[in-house]
Amino acid sequence: MFEKFALFQSHIDLAHNHWKTLVKTGDTVIDATCGNGHDTLVLATLALSATSGTLYALDVQSAAIDSSKQHLQENLPQDVFNRIHFVERCHSQFPPEISHHSVMLIAYNLGYLPGGDKTETTTAETTIASLQKAQQLIKDGGVICITCYPGHAAGKEEEKRVLAFMKTLEPKQWSCSHHCWTNRNNAPSLVLVQKNIPTAFR
Amino acid sequence: MFEKFALFQSHIDLAHNHWKTLVKTGDTVIDATCGNGHDTLVLATLALSATSGTLYALDVQSAAIDSSKQHLQENLPQDVFNRIHFVERCHSQFPPEISHHSVMLIAYNLGYLPGGDKTETTTAETTIASLQKAQQLIKDGGVICITCYPGHAAGKEEEKRVLAFMKTLEPKQWSCSHHCWTNRNNAPSLVLVQKNIPTAFR
Repeated sequence: MFEKFALFQSHIDLAHNHWKTLVKTGDTVIDATCGNGHDTLVLATLALSATSGTLYALDVQSAAIDSSKQHLQENLPQDVFNRIHFVERCHSQFPPEISHHSVMLIAYNLGYLPGGDKTETTTAETTIASLQKAQQLIKDGGVICITCYPGHAAGKEEEKRVLAFMKTLEPKQWSCSHHCWTNRNNAPSLVLVQKNIPTAFR
Repeated sequence: MFEKFALFQSHIDLAHNHWKTLVKTGDTVIDATCGNGHDTLVLATLALSATSGTLYALDVQSAAIDSSKQHLQENLPQDVFNRIHFVERCHSQFPPEISHHSVMLIAYNLGYLPGGDKTETTTAETTIASLQKAQQLIKDGGVICITCYPGHAAGKEEEKRVLAFMKTLEPKQWSCSHHCWTNRNNAPSLVLVQKNIPTAFR
């Protein structure tokens, strides 16, 4: 997944390269919309060992949770798989046991479940509600990573709302960046938001 | 320059992190607008050894060439410094000895020389002319990296023209991405363009 030349040939390359730089074994990470578990597997590989690291995988659809469980079980040692907390819940409802300022990375993949019901999508309302809560959970230096799908109308509106929300964040506390591909129609875009490290601790 | 957490807190972090992944000792690289030589030094550190690598540093202003030379001489061993070709010339006039499909990275920092004459800026016309030539020089997997300064009117127009040019590039051959910071007024933005590797050679 980390090919030498795949710097930013897609939003997936870019996201995974940043995750690789950021996440270390033992970290707490969240896949807020686990879908079929592809990103969850990348996060598990980076954050988990048999004895350390914590990964929460949320999805509102039971079909997604089932699909993710199967994908991860097939690709991870059992003791690593056992460290994943699967949570069948909307991405705006993080488990209350996750402490504030404890999470290194929260990843979102907006839109519908690939291969699933296309009418069941994330909505701008629940996504913004989730991002507001995510801000509380992220630790200094940690990142919120959001893949947007402006190729369909609801996805375009959701991207617009996410970007408008990001504009409101205090620049001394948060670095909000938007990455899009300019010579592809309807390409997904990536929003990366890092909680700045207080200068005294750098 | 590669702090653990400085993923994308600025356009400089993002650019340098990608350069670090991409450029190896022995590569040919170009700083198309060397300015005071800060990016040139990063490129020299990545691409040059005492016996390998090639770096061209262009700038249309003699003050910039002088300033870069001094900065690099102070910060590099003499035999590494000696491998840098300083070229006092517009960024649209690459030296003719640079072969097509030979360059791993061409970096541009648009606008005016920091600390210099603010009326002497790059222009959209020469920048687009340069980018057209740069396309010929880049090798498969290589990158054109452009820092834009939309904070002033001419810089905004230049960014617009660069993005319009990037939209015209064939998506199977080029991955054109634009990275901007959404919660900072007038922040520089970064255009990263990678020449795709033909699938057969990946």
